[in-house]
Amino acid sequence: MIPRYSRPEMTQIWEPANKFRLWFLIEAHACDAQAELGVIPKDAAAAVWAGGDKPYTEDRIARIDAIERETKHDVIAFTTELADQVGEMSRFVHQGMTSSDVLDTCFNLQLTQAADLLLADMDRVLNALKTRAIEHKFTPTIGRSHGIHAEPVTFGLKLAKHYAEFARGKQRLERAREEIATCAISGAVGTFANIDPFVEEYVAGKLGLQPEPISTQVIPRDRHAAFFSALGVIASSMENVAVEVRHLQRTELREAEEFFSKGQKGSSAMPHKRNPVLSENLTGLARIVRSAVVPALENVALWHERDISHSSVERMIGPDATVTLDFALNRMAGMIENMVVYSDRMHANLESLGGLHNSQRILLALTQAGASREDAYRLVQKNAMESWHQGRPLQELAVEDADIRAYLSEDEVNALFDLDYHTKHVETIFKRVFG
Amino acid sequence: MIPRYSRPEMTQIWEPANKFRLWFLIEAHACDAQAELGVIPKDAAAAVWAGGDKPYTEDRIARIDAIERETKHDVIAFTTELADQVGEMSRFVHQGMTSSDVLDTCFNLQLTQAADLLLADMDRVLNALKTRAIEHKFTPTIGRSHGIHAEPVTFGLKLAKHYAEFARGKQRLERAREEIATCAISGAVGTFANIDPFVEEYVAGKLGLQPEPISTQVIPRDRHAAFFSALGVIASSMENVAVEVRHLQRTELREAEEFFSKGQKGSSAMPHKRNPVLSENLTGLARIVRSAVVPALENVALWHERDISHSSVERMIGPDATVTLDFALNRMAGMIENMVVYSDRMHANLESLGGLHNSQRILLALTQAGASREDAYRLVQKNAMESWHQGRPLQELAVEDADIRAYLSEDEVNALFDLDYHTKHVETIFKRVFG
Amino acid sequence: MIPRYSRPEMTQIWEPANKFRLWFLIEAHACDAQAELGVIPKDAAAAVWAGGDKPYTEDRIARIDAIERETKHDVIAFTTELADQVGEMSRFVHQGMTSSDVLDTCFNLQLTQAADLLLADMDRVLNALKTRAIEHKFTPTIGRSHGIHAEPVTFGLKLAKHYAEFARGKQRLERAREEIATCAISGAVGTFANIDPFVEEYVAGKLGLQPEPISTQVIPRDRHAAFFSALGVIASSMENVAVEVRHLQRTELREAEEFFSKGQKGSSAMPHKRNPVLSENLTGLARIVRSAVVPALENVALWHERDISHSSVERMIGPDATVTLDFALNRMAGMIENMVVYSDRMHANLESLGGLHNSQRILLALTQAGASREDAYRLVQKNAMESWHQGRPLQELAVEDADIRAYLSEDEVNALFDLDYHTKHVETIFKRVFG
Amino acid sequence: MIPRYSRPEMTQIWEPANKFRLWFLIEAHACDAQAELGVIPKDAAAAVWAGGDKPYTEDRIARIDAIERETKHDVIAFTTELADQVGEMSRFVHQGMTSSDVLDTCFNLQLTQAADLLLADMDRVLNALKTRAIEHKFTPTIGRSHGIHAEPVTFGLKLAKHYAEFARGKQRLERAREEIATCAISGAVGTFANIDPFVEEYVAGKLGLQPEPISTQVIPRDRHAAFFSALGVIASSMENVAVEVRHLQRTELREAEEFFSKGQKGSSAMPHKRNPVLSENLTGLARIVRSAVVPALENVALWHERDISHSSVERMIGPDATVTLDFALNRMAGMIENMVVYSDRMHANLESLGGLHNSQRILLALTQAGASREDAYRLVQKNAMESWHQGRPLQELAVEDADIRAYLSEDEVNALFDLDYHTKHVETIFKRVFG
Repeated sequence: MIPRYSRPEMTQIWEPANKFRLWFLIEAHACDAQAELGVIPKDAAAAVWAGGDKPYTEDRIARIDAIERETKHDVIAFTTELADQVGEMSRFVHQGMTSSDVLDTCFNLQLTQAADLLLADMDRVLNALKTRAIEHKFTPTIGRSHGIHAEPVTFGLKLAKHYAEFARGKQRLERAREEIATCAISGAVGTFANIDPFVEEYVAGKLGLQPEPISTQVIPRDRHAAFFSALGVIASSMENVAVEVRHLQRTELREAEEFFSKGQKGSSAMPHKRNPVLSENLTGLARIVRSAVVPALENVALWHERDISHSSVERMIGPDATVTLDFALNRMAGMIENMVVYSDRMHANLESLGGLHNSQRILLALTQAGASREDAYRLVQKNAMESWHQGRPLQELAVEDADIRAYLSEDEVNALFDLDYHTKHVETIFKRVFG
Repeated sequence: MIPRYSRPEMTQIWEPANKFRLWFLIEAHACDAQAELGVIPKDAAAAVWAGGDKPYTEDRIARIDAIERETKHDVIAFTTELADQVGEMSRFVHQGMTSSDVLDTCFNLQLTQAADLLLADMDRVLNALKTRAIEHKFTPTIGRSHGIHAEPVTFGLKLAKHYAEFARGKQRLERAREEIATCAISGAVGTFANIDPFVEEYVAGKLGLQPEPISTQVIPRDRHAAFFSALGVIASSMENVAVEVRHLQRTELREAEEFFSKGQKGSSAMPHKRNPVLSENLTGLARIVRSAVVPALENVALWHERDISHSSVERMIGPDATVTLDFALNRMAGMIENMVVYSDRMHANLESLGGLHNSQRILLALTQAGASREDAYRLVQKNAMESWHQGRPLQELAVEDADIRAYLSEDEVNALFDLDYHTKHVETIFKRVFG
Repeated sequence: MIPRYSRPEMTQIWEPANKFRLWFLIEAHACDAQAELGVIPKDAAAAVWAGGDKPYTEDRIARIDAIERETKHDVIAFTTELADQVGEMSRFVHQGMTSSDVLDTCFNLQLTQAADLLLADMDRVLNALKTRAIEHKFTPTIGRSHGIHAEPVTFGLKLAKHYAEFARGKQRLERAREEIATCAISGAVGTFANIDPFVEEYVAGKLGLQPEPISTQVIPRDRHAAFFSALGVIASSMENVAVEVRHLQRTELREAEEFFSKGQKGSSAMPHKRNPVLSENLTGLARIVRSAVVPALENVALWHERDISHSSVERMIGPDATVTLDFALNRMAGMIENMVVYSDRMHANLESLGGLHNSQRILLALTQAGASREDAYRLVQKNAMESWHQGRPLQELAVEDADIRAYLSEDEVNALFDLDYHTKHVETIFKRVFG
Repeated sequence: MIPRYSRPEMTQIWEPANKFRLWFLIEAHACDAQAELGVIPKDAAAAVWAGGDKPYTEDRIARIDAIERETKHDVIAFTTELADQVGEMSRFVHQGMTSSDVLDTCFNLQLTQAADLLLADMDRVLNALKTRAIEHKFTPTIGRSHGIHAEPVTFGLKLAKHYAEFARGKQRLERAREEIATCAISGAVGTFANIDPFVEEYVAGKLGLQPEPISTQVIPRDRHAAFFSALGVIASSMENVAVEVRHLQRTELREAEEFFSKGQKGSSAMPHKRNPVLSENLTGLARIVRSAVVPALENVALWHERDISHSSVERMIGPDATVTLDFALNRMAGMIENMVVYSDRMHANLESLGGLHNSQRILLALTQAGASREDAYRLVQKNAMESWHQGRPLQELAVEDADIRAYLSEDEVNALFDLDYHTKHVETIFKRVFG
């Protein structure tokens, strides 16, 4: 996570002001629950809200930091500062709780907030893909397998494919969000020895979380591994889009281009030198987001009721993966929204091999007209090779070929070269994807 | 995937006999659909079933291999052999289809079969964990954070934690199975140019799959990335169990042990030398299963409508990850089922620090009895340190301490050392986990 | 590791016959050393060689397997079978040694053998790259950054770049081989309590290994992590070559092509459909080789003097990574050796933008002729854009431009479009790379 | 990279002040070389040094940032600000160069600086390990395989093992540093079309780098992949130490402990609650450092002469991996330097099984005294099991056993229980490791 690849919407989730605010909410709601149980006075809970329910300003954060430098304990520093605000009643705060109750619930809250932002990002990406897909629903372009011309598709289909992939990614993220939205207030080893399970349920309810069915000192880390894995798959789907755009913008294809603002320059004097730097950047950012997956998996097997090896990992991958993915998704959405599509170039490339992409159709037509598969193949191949080597359109050659014409009339041959044949099910596919 | 770490139930999914059988089913159902559409004769479809609906014996497989060595094309080799069985009507097989239609649908079918086996494995693991959890619901043992004694838990709680984690893993695997259970019969670039979408829908229905809403030449690989990620998280949860067992079996703990069959020997003459080799092995196997995640993520971004870079990866990680995890889950289930639990050693270790794990309770009791938190802390710490250094039980010291007794009666002090305090919510937690 | 991606030269290293042969050599040399020390009779050592110094036939291996099924101990099974061959004197075999002494030394021997094969593979790759680089030393082609035309290079330079990269990879592999070529015969916890260090030194010397300076029960696994990392970097360099070829073979570029044997067919009737399947395959295989790196890193931190979690990992990644890389390097070498290079297409693509790649040169020439950088840039850009949009060669436009001609004569302008300018240091670079 | 896990010595390498200073040095030395070649006036080069050879203050950096926000080009922003300092002659700066010449050479310089710091860190770690190893050269402790007591070692041996591992890590890092210390000033596609190779050689020499034998637009990324892999292996070795310490500090072992400063508190009132938080933290940080390896490997295969996908990755893993490892190595060195070793606890644990760890010795002694291996094994096992179950020392039981005494005198039996037997080669091993 570096400023260059960050948006404030996401970074603020990981900033002290938000973290301490969430700690406060956890503690204050816990006080309410404890008061309801009669463990602490109702006045105490009220005092905590009265004194503490306000933003963590820079001053307050600096004060907490100063205390932490002394006590070397972040939660104690936090409660000490809170005492300044709340007064004497603050001694009822955190009763029966363990630091991890606050830290783990807060981390899950932050991940939940991050997920909400990422889900909104996904919506922006999905919208962009859908809009452009519909715009280019019938823009013909050559489909390529192995980088080699195959048969025609439409540019809209390409985008619809990515839409469907991101829609799946969004679903996975929704589930990952649901899985991570848990709350643990269960004490030193998760037995509720010093705190009633009611507190956990109460706080969870107030914060939009589910109580963690069974925690130890910590919330189990398979939840987090699943969360970061979900981000990793989305990052790979993002790379998928990026690689497509990078290919389309290659000089020899020039079928689409990232938008270049007026002032922007490629690196040299050459006007053609417009580089797909956004999608290349997204390719790299995908690697970074994915790099969180393995450490998250390694974080699962903690010793007994907990060891703290996961903590340093999460302090980094928590912000890094979410901030980077948030930035990247927005960059990608913008890239798609503004992408310049050269349908003329698509058409030119599509036709550059003289209709060779219809050779399979002629083959099928010949067999349906009674030719054996072997004869049909031989006939088509002969003409296809001639077309390839002489640069003459296959259509012309096929019409002139007496052997082919023995099976098919001129009109029938010509009919085999219409593009509509390839796009006749676009509507069906779009219905499947967009409903 | 090596025989040492394989079960035949899973390896057979990846063997030619199963693969070719699935190819046959895909082709035969497709013929039925094409016949229904009138694209091919109904007799043709009937002939395919009549001639081909039988196992792929070693002879048949050898014949296919021989043809493939010649043609260098696996699907052509397959259909050629099928023609031997079906006769002349076999020329209607595979019409309008692309090799990938067969290969990708088959791969997803194999992963679906593998998932079903893994789900059954998970059930065995869950059963084992549940049975032993209930057995040891109230077997007290010391909870440890950072490897250091903290407060008491029960051994049943430890197992319940793993149960809950595996239950989540199973849910994720169910979703991953659902996601991977798709069928694509959409032709060279996914446009259905030469085949009606009805065929895909029909075949999908017959094989218990969903039609892939939009495919290119291939089924999108984010599905597979999500699948292998789900396996990776389960592998990490497995490591979590393994690390726990390895710890419990350490010479100094000896709280539990993998079962040793009569004949089995540790490596030396020492009878104590019973090594947790199963759980160590599981730790290693977890690393192997996880190693499939990154290549699966790297497989997502294929070029345009497909490149074939994913194929070699999947030929390896497909069998490797599923066979290894299947073997490992069964090994783990057996290990849990047969694990020898030494509740006496658990008790001895729990009490080895003279009740020090109750120090926090005394602290709370003193504050509730009116002591300031500072005073209470000082009093407890003084006695705790004495207990630690002199080896005398904290309970004795606390009873004798006049300052403590100023707040608490002897009975009240003694009451702070009962174990039930720590286990009073076990029932609640078990209800949450096991329902 | 699957047959499809294996060469027998490498797989045989990992087969039982080789493994047991290495075990025998370790034990037999150890007997010699023990005899020299007087720990066992000289006759015993002689008897071991006399009876055991012969290949492990299928029969012998089957016998060992049968014993292992009974004893569940591989080294005991091995020594028992050896006793069949050696007779009574075999009881002196393995004296003072630990199974790991044999297993770890053998694994390192196998990795050393594998490294030797891989080094030979690298030589084949280097030769292929060098030969083709020299062949195309001055074959001009457009250099591309971001997939966009930049300035001319030669195809030989492209290959020389990969040569230099593989030469570095080879050096790293040589070092990794050196690091892995160690021998440990140090007993149960590495203290030589029951065996003299002389034995280790002696056996190491005989097998071309170095004694491991300090082992525990096992050889430290940082050596193996470094080894598999070296393979991972080579795999990435292989992907680098593969991606280049895949790009060059794209329909729109067609600058180079993997060799297609006469019989071989692309998937359809279209003669242009020759797919870069080898390089796509190499891209996938690179992912597989790389996937060994993380588990090898996770294998380093074993518990105390050893745990056996590394073992299952190594049983898989040992063969998998070396066999796959060996196969892939040979496939790549063949691909490079036989690659069809279309220098005419390279030339056509190079010129397709009408000499625009010389715009920077004109800019420099104008500034050297006295124009301010700003003026020069403006002049060049104007003409470059005109060239781009009208499709007229920049050279023509520049000659016609009065403002440019104010600084440069017609000859001077034309001189800015010769290709030699870009290739004048090819010789220097080749000397750096090839010596 | 977050402040909590950073040291200023390393972070400053990655700060703008250092980066721009390195850019300046590259440009200024390049000017000298160009002046020597007569490409630019000598006065120009002199002016660049005269005006620019000074620190990048916050003001200057702010100015560069402001320009970059406008031009969106970092190198142009840099040279523009430099012009403020240098005056009119600054137009000769950067002549014939490409941004990547500056950026890539600078990145390698930063990595070289980082490597130098890390090498110093390694020295500190090595010193700490050596000092403590010598201190505890003969401190006996039980060796453990699989977490189970095996045979005695010394604590010094444990540390010597880690020393040897880190010494290897240092060597690998030295090589990685050597490999990364290259300079490329070769122009837009690496052909030196617009700049003489002499400039590259000259600048390389001045900056302590080697000229990159062949670059494209960029320095080949296999060098960086090898670099980050070297860091990854070191991180795993660090985890190896950390896991050892975490084990030794477990409540049941208490053989060693991280130093606790006076004021420091564990989380509760219990004095025994001193947690190995440093080594747990190091375990997590190892995961983070390792997570740079895969993206670095993925960065190798750039498209043609370069794409910029590597850049975002390196902006993050460059600082992250080096800053984190630097911090962690220093934390670890301090942890080792201050670690509290409880040799009495080591002794108590060693003896806790009543000398059972000598059972193998008795076995060997019996066979050497004429017993068959089978009889010897049976005799030892009988007594070992009795010792295990009754808790009586094996030594006592062995002395009393008539069957054993038939082969060995009382003195001979007792002699089998001295510790020196196990430590007799410690000197030899130390000589191997420390010279």
